[in-house]
Amino acid sequence: MHEFDLIREYFIWSTNQASVVLGVGDDGAICDIESGYQLVSSIDTLIAGVHFPQTTSAADVAHKALAVNLSDIAAMGALPKYYTLALTLPEVNQPWLRDFSQSLKQLSKQFNISLIGGDTTKGNLSITISIMGWIESGKALRRSGAQIGDGVYVSNTLGSAAFALWQLNNNEVPDVTNLKSLNRPIPQLELGRSLQGIASACIDISDGLEQDLSHILVASNVGAVIEVEKLPINRVLAKRILKDGDYSLPLNGGDDYELCFTVPEKNQAMLGDIAKHCGIKITQIGVICASGGLEIVGAKNIGESYQHF
Amino acid sequence: MHEFDLIREYFIWSTNQASVVLGVGDDGAICDIESGYQLVSSIDTLIAGVHFPQTTSAADVAHKALAVNLSDIAAMGALPKYYTLALTLPEVNQPWLRDFSQSLKQLSKQFNISLIGGDTTKGNLSITISIMGWIESGKALRRSGAQIGDGVYVSNTLGSAAFALWQLNNNEVPDVTNLKSLNRPIPQLELGRSLQGIASACIDISDGLEQDLSHILVASNVGAVIEVEKLPINRVLAKRILKDGDYSLPLNGGDDYELCFTVPEKNQAMLGDIAKHCGIKITQIGVICASGGLEIVGAKNIGESYQHF
Repeated sequence: MHEFDLIREYFIWSTNQASVVLGVGDDGAICDIESGYQLVSSIDTLIAGVHFPQTTSAADVAHKALAVNLSDIAAMGALPKYYTLALTLPEVNQPWLRDFSQSLKQLSKQFNISLIGGDTTKGNLSITISIMGWIESGKALRRSGAQIGDGVYVSNTLGSAAFALWQLNNNEVPDVTNLKSLNRPIPQLELGRSLQGIASACIDISDGLEQDLSHILVASNVGAVIEVEKLPINRVLAKRILKDGDYSLPLNGGDDYELCFTVPEKNQAMLGDIAKHCGIKITQIGVICASGGLEIVGAKNIGESYQHF
Repeated sequence: MHEFDLIREYFIWSTNQASVVLGVGDDGAICDIESGYQLVSSIDTLIAGVHFPQTTSAADVAHKALAVNLSDIAAMGALPKYYTLALTLPEVNQPWLRDFSQSLKQLSKQFNISLIGGDTTKGNLSITISIMGWIESGKALRRSGAQIGDGVYVSNTLGSAAFALWQLNNNEVPDVTNLKSLNRPIPQLELGRSLQGIASACIDISDGLEQDLSHILVASNVGAVIEVEKLPINRVLAKRILKDGDYSLPLNGGDDYELCFTVPEKNQAMLGDIAKHCGIKITQIGVICASGGLEIVGAKNIGESYQHF
């Protein structure tokens, strides 16, 4: 199959964004830019067998590839707008492509974002998405704003995706909710937007809480104390941890794509309303202190966070 | 080596673009946008063994990966500004990474563009670059504007890169100039900018003249007649073609990254000055006619253009 037939068949769908002047099908896409906004941009690659099991369905792969990029935009408090897709395929498998493109389209519609360009190449299955969004000028949430005394918070639960992956790798049948966390993570875009002007720093948890919170600490030049007993953990995983006291999944399991953020005392009272508005749970797990790294109270066995090499 | 150490060591260098508010090192990058401009965006992947021989040096790989993306921006007549890099590596090879990053930095400085984000993953060597640029609102060169009677032009010479690749694959020693066309293509950014308001349609030649010119014809709903004897071909390749009359390299060899564009008669007198200003050669190879595809006069043996699958 010719690349252009493939793109025409699977990756051109109508966009309802008026700002997309020219989409897929020229050397580049053209988008209008509103004044008062800055461009926010990020890129992420998922590789079969590295970032998802080889057995993952095309629909799950597409969802995850886009969701992890949307999660970066969420962590900046920005509004996702456009993305380009570089898809490397071992072969042209039409049913696979149909499922992949339908799932991508579905998530794109859900968050009103447009696929504006792409490249397809032959090789081991790999998906790179480059995402672009807008942020009101000067309003982005960064990693560098945490201050001593700020509370440390996370959205929803931690370790669910990593637990499902662990179960798959150990021939156990994962709980449906956990499997959904692994294959269909929900980018916390509404939460990110709501934290504008409220949170002092924010990051999404892709490599594990310990590693990702540490990025906030280094960028902000502060330390933090968190307590394992405060970590929000779902019922099934909590039961297992009660047995062996091993908190490595919620602390170091990646793939949660929840947000970890810090909030100054004066803004903390607003978090209840934000949680309610977003339909999520927000939990305080610790507090920012003077420099000295990350202290984890109550953890006995801690593994290693995700290492890229 | 940890991903973040790798990024810190090799991919953070100072940018002299004031519009980059936040670069590599957060969830996303933040860039200021000037009013009166539109965003132009494109993405391209190069895979070892598919888009370049496995033996290609790290410096050549980096140059080519960025140059082919810059070439898309050139074909739109736009100004390149930022790019993100998704780099998949089989292992952390420090000398390779040093050469790769130095070459990337050099080309970035040459065109005053900034690396604003990236992702590194483990796998077969593959480089995806997502490029972003600005275009004065409404001024982009598209594929769709060619009109009956317009002249068809190309920059510099065709087939040089494909000839070098053919020689490498056939144990011949390529001419230095041709090898440079293959490994160090020069994106025609100055030409693209100069063609704003002059050319009626434009594309960069990545997959071969026949295929890429055909994209202009389809998008513009016109046909074209070109003559092989008018194709600009360098001396070494021309000598070989004189022997066997086989024009498949200049017609179908990809990887030239020259521009193919159409110009209405009233603007054609300006092309001499543009060529002089850009320090390049511009050659008319044919003319746009009513619909009926691409007619190639004088060609006996034509191969196939690059097929992605």
